[in-house]
Amino acid sequence: MAYWIWFPHDFEIDLRAKVEMRREEHGMTCPSIWRMDAPGRAIAFQKTYTLDRAGSARLYAQGGAYVCIDGVSAPDRSDRIALPAGTHTLNVAVMNPNGLPALYLEGDVETDGSFLACENNVDFLPCGWSALFDAPERRPMDYRLPTRRVRPAGYTPEGLIDFGREVFGFVRMTSTSAGPYCVFYGESAQEALAGKRGETWDEGRFEAAGETVRLPSRAMRYVRVAGPVDEKSVEMDLEYNGLAWRAAFSCEDERLEAIYKVSAYTMELCTREFFLDGIKRDRWVWAGDALQSVMMNHYSYFDSATARRTLAALRGREPFNQHINTILDYTFYWIIAVWEDYFFTGDSAFIQSMYAKMVSAMNYTRAFLSADGFVVGQKRDWVFVDWAPMSKEGELCFEQVLMWKALTILSQCAQLVGAEADRERYCAEADALRSGIFKVFWDEKKGTLAHQRLEGVVQGHTRYAPMFALMYGMLDEDKARAVIQNTLLAEDAPVITTPYMRFYEMEALMRAGKAREVLREVKDYWGGMLDLGATSIWEQFDPTEEGDAHYAMYGRPFGRSLCHCWGAGPVYLFGRYLLGVSPTEPGYAAYEVRPELAGMRHVRGKVPAPQGEIAVEATEAGVTVRSTCKGRGTLIWKGESVPIPAWQGGEAVVVRV
Amino acid sequence: MAYWIWFPHDFEIDLRAKVEMRREEHGMTCPSIWRMDAPGRAIAFQKTYTLDRAGSARLYAQGGAYVCIDGVSAPDRSDRIALPAGTHTLNVAVMNPNGLPALYLEGDVETDGSFLACENNVDFLPCGWSALFDAPERRPMDYRLPTRRVRPAGYTPEGLIDFGREVFGFVRMTSTSAGPYCVFYGESAQEALAGKRGETWDEGRFEAAGETVRLPSRAMRYVRVAGPVDEKSVEMDLEYNGLAWRAAFSCEDERLEAIYKVSAYTMELCTREFFLDGIKRDRWVWAGDALQSVMMNHYSYFDSATARRTLAALRGREPFNQHINTILDYTFYWIIAVWEDYFFTGDSAFIQSMYAKMVSAMNYTRAFLSADGFVVGQKRDWVFVDWAPMSKEGELCFEQVLMWKALTILSQCAQLVGAEADRERYCAEADALRSGIFKVFWDEKKGTLAHQRLEGVVQGHTRYAPMFALMYGMLDEDKARAVIQNTLLAEDAPVITTPYMRFYEMEALMRAGKAREVLREVKDYWGGMLDLGATSIWEQFDPTEEGDAHYAMYGRPFGRSLCHCWGAGPVYLFGRYLLGVSPTEPGYAAYEVRPELAGMRHVRGKVPAPQGEIAVEATEAGVTVRSTCKGRGTLIWKGESVPIPAWQGGEAVVVRV
Repeated sequence: MAYWIWFPHDFEIDLRAKVEMRREEHGMTCPSIWRMDAPGRAIAFQKTYTLDRAGSARLYAQGGAYVCIDGVSAPDRSDRIALPAGTHTLNVAVMNPNGLPALYLEGDVETDGSFLACENNVDFLPCGWSALFDAPERRPMDYRLPTRRVRPAGYTPEGLIDFGREVFGFVRMTSTSAGPYCVFYGESAQEALAGKRGETWDEGRFEAAGETVRLPSRAMRYVRVAGPVDEKSVEMDLEYNGLAWRAAFSCEDERLEAIYKVSAYTMELCTREFFLDGIKRDRWVWAGDALQSVMMNHYSYFDSATARRTLAALRGREPFNQHINTILDYTFYWIIAVWEDYFFTGDSAFIQSMYAKMVSAMNYTRAFLSADGFVVGQKRDWVFVDWAPMSKEGELCFEQVLMWKALTILSQCAQLVGAEADRERYCAEADALRSGIFKVFWDEKKGTLAHQRLEGVVQGHTRYAPMFALMYGMLDEDKARAVIQNTLLAEDAPVITTPYMRFYEMEALMRAGKAREVLREVKDYWGGMLDLGATSIWEQFDPTEEGDAHYAMYGRPFGRSLCHCWGAGPVYLFGRYLLGVSPTEPGYAAYEVRPELAGMRHVRGKVPAPQGEIAVEATEAGVTVRSTCKGRGTLIWKGESVPIPAWQGGEAVVVRV
Repeated sequence: MAYWIWFPHDFEIDLRAKVEMRREEHGMTCPSIWRMDAPGRAIAFQKTYTLDRAGSARLYAQGGAYVCIDGVSAPDRSDRIALPAGTHTLNVAVMNPNGLPALYLEGDVETDGSFLACENNVDFLPCGWSALFDAPERRPMDYRLPTRRVRPAGYTPEGLIDFGREVFGFVRMTSTSAGPYCVFYGESAQEALAGKRGETWDEGRFEAAGETVRLPSRAMRYVRVAGPVDEKSVEMDLEYNGLAWRAAFSCEDERLEAIYKVSAYTMELCTREFFLDGIKRDRWVWAGDALQSVMMNHYSYFDSATARRTLAALRGREPFNQHINTILDYTFYWIIAVWEDYFFTGDSAFIQSMYAKMVSAMNYTRAFLSADGFVVGQKRDWVFVDWAPMSKEGELCFEQVLMWKALTILSQCAQLVGAEADRERYCAEADALRSGIFKVFWDEKKGTLAHQRLEGVVQGHTRYAPMFALMYGMLDEDKARAVIQNTLLAEDAPVITTPYMRFYEMEALMRAGKAREVLREVKDYWGGMLDLGATSIWEQFDPTEEGDAHYAMYGRPFGRSLCHCWGAGPVYLFGRYLLGVSPTEPGYAAYEVRPELAGMRHVRGKVPAPQGEIAVEATEAGVTVRSTCKGRGTLIWKGESVPIPAWQGGEAVVVRV
């Protein structure tokens, strides 16, 4: 089987620029605010092959190609390479001054992941490739998601075209005469009616009647067309990701089921070439959003290809001279997400390819530590944490917890790639940082982690550091209990108003066994959006706001995204904590199923694993697990542990208690 | 005046990929063997302006653009930016996923070198720009050298079209009927007659009679056309650099005049978008060749724009993880060439923009020093020196001399940019290295510098280290005399067979006052090529070879380039040492004129300076200098020093002795 190949991560880096370039708002292209790398332009691909008899290969390239065998150039240009019998080194250099250099060979030697790639004549690395590009005509440069034509669901009295729910795609329409047109998009009806006060529109001119235009891809539920167009002619080429949703969830509570459904749809819309933050705005790849998508991915698509595309694109090329997305926290999230992908898939190839880039990211980060070894946001950094107003100066406990987690992961990665000295150093640094965190930030009086140290004074109380410390297992039992009581279930830490951080709050509470409290919150908060008619989850939701205030953000009346993947958290929460499925060893080599009814009479559903899936049905009377997972499972129910044997092929393993 | 602007050095890096991609041989594209960077894809341009009254600017961009004033996005897409009165910060972000992001504003605020550019939202740098692109329609992406249509000079009995001398351009021809064609190019008649044993050809097919094709740009003197083409229809769009040759040289010796003329023409052909090595092959930018071109440039075009384009392109982007052109020596040559450009022009802007990249190049180099602090070629490096057979293992004295010169230059650059700690460190390192060189490599018995130390044994005798040590002023008077006698004028060091290293040999001998010996060598060696009919100087010339052996190289019958800029050395040698003009302070703030008749009755000519020129006429009877140079000059003749006053405008200053 032959695949197109390229320099590792360059396809992803190239694609990201194309995708992020599609962001437009207020009629302008909106360029990314971080360094946007381009692929290397001259790449040598190499493989040492052995053939019993002389053969040949057909050559296809994105760019110009130069063929050498054993260091001697081929005698003439040829789309057909003559391959002598025996063991020889085939080297094809591809140069493309306008885009990604890529190569496809089919014949007696075929391009695949066994080729090496090199851009400086010296450092040969395993090449990049993707199962997406498995034929000469399926070229990486032509990659687009599939589309299908759909008609509107209806038309509103105010003259809006209504697609029935949030959608993403290319509006098509046909003119009734010559003349200018303007198409206004709205995630809400209010936005579509707001003209140029909305976020996105398209303007143009028909030269004659009967002309059909296909506009750029946009997010919308509603469309308003001004100009010589019969609104009945308006259709859409809906763009979709083509992936199979491999999870399911149901329970007796219809509100929870509805929340799961809308969350899943939100995740579906934001899962495009990459895991994007939202589909109206920004349509960009952000590490904070990406980590959550990677976590949700393991309870939905289990599509590691999208996850790794996202993570490779986020990191870009060397040198690492600014935090990912310019945000201090996001470098840590990126490292955590790389590990998350490994831990669920058990496939270390991606970490192998990314390890040097993880190290250089951490080297950069460590260049800005305080005297006590705490990471401190510099003037050049955006210290984000969350949109809530808070002081972000000095040493934030939250950032230290993330750094500790990242160092811990780096030590594990170092072990995976066999870098023992690195492993020891990262372990030691993680331990020292952990001690420092408790020494400095643990507030004995309050019984929780403080928010920050600023000019020598430890101060402030927010939910961020305690909930991440809880989630990442940094706390012993006493401290965990204290933090739950004194921060997570207390009222004196400011309430979180983004689904983004709500997600981690729910995750931490779930880990603390507070499933009933979580479900109450989810029904209240996520359900609150559904009550307002949401067909996808929003970027931000403050139940105390009213009317059109729900649509405003960034000082713009419709600045808020109404389809934001960081709101799809229930996809993860329900699979992981209600169905209760999670790996305990990389790649589900071992896993546990720990269902949680949370006061309901039943929960039912399934969760994907690297090979196969794990279906769970729990009632008060007992649990049934059907697994086609090759790992050793354990069903944990009411304090009892029941082994789930490894699936050997054939029918699913069924275990009942 | 408005100019297109870009992220510093990205235009040059982008153009280099396009230019180097044009190398083709044996019908195949021949990709560069080094890392070929692409420009950043999302660049923010920024300027704080002050306007008395509200104004506007027209916007042109290569890519999509997003406009903010004082951090607030403009209300709507507009090619016309409204600029409020007062002092404001204008920020235009440009993103281009397919090429160089570039911006042009004209109106009340105009783009020029006063804008800053940034690719990561943090590190703002002075933008890149060029006087070439001073109108909306003169876009950087469209940059091509000019062409003019020429007819062949004649037709040979063997059926070759003869352009009369080496030329570079696009062959045009018209078909007499449908059918396939093949066009064979030759720098020599033999090559054009050799069919596909030659280096370059173009194949194609005419679909009908009367079709005209314009083939890719190629180097040639001769062309052979196979196919349905009347050879009388064959013409050429000659591509030329459009620069003014600002130097002149004549003397009583016609052979020297002819050598100067052919050298100048060689330089002209190789001075294209960049200083290229040669025009048939490689058509690439190599630092070893570029340094010589930069030196010759100051005695010919004095076109710093081409020099800086070349040097910026050579360095590429960060990280520096492999030597320039993959060659150890070439990193040093690149540093030396940056300084050479500064010293002759006196304009430190380029060094300012390049200093950080010089430092990172040196940091990389210093990571591979031996225990004694000597630089040693690693397995990943190409240690070139010269094509002559020699041992290149271990510590080569030649590389140490280059490293010493590079460290010395870095200390001077550090001083220029105000990096005092760097200056001190580089000074100390240079001094230590110099001591080490003499301690280890000075051969008291032979009275010269040895070739190498290998496995503890100092051994070998070549011309390279001695002549560079002499040229760069590393030797005291005694050692200089010894080296001239014991190496340069001795016969026991192997003879040099490339004009490349011959150039430095002649330069060192000129410095040592051996002008007559140099002219004898030049007439013999360079003249030897002219005797064989050369219309441009060759890549390699070994007078002992015979017949077609002169055309062979790299194991290919016509692999040798017959137009190679490293052969144009006489352009430099005659201007610098016969007319005797050279700056003694940066930018010709002070300079000297030290004519040398070398046994002739007269030499005459002129040399360009940053502003104006210096014309010299010397005979046994005396010297006349006409200068329009603003610096303080000194005419040195027969041991006497005569001041040349600074030119104040108006007529040239004339000084006679």
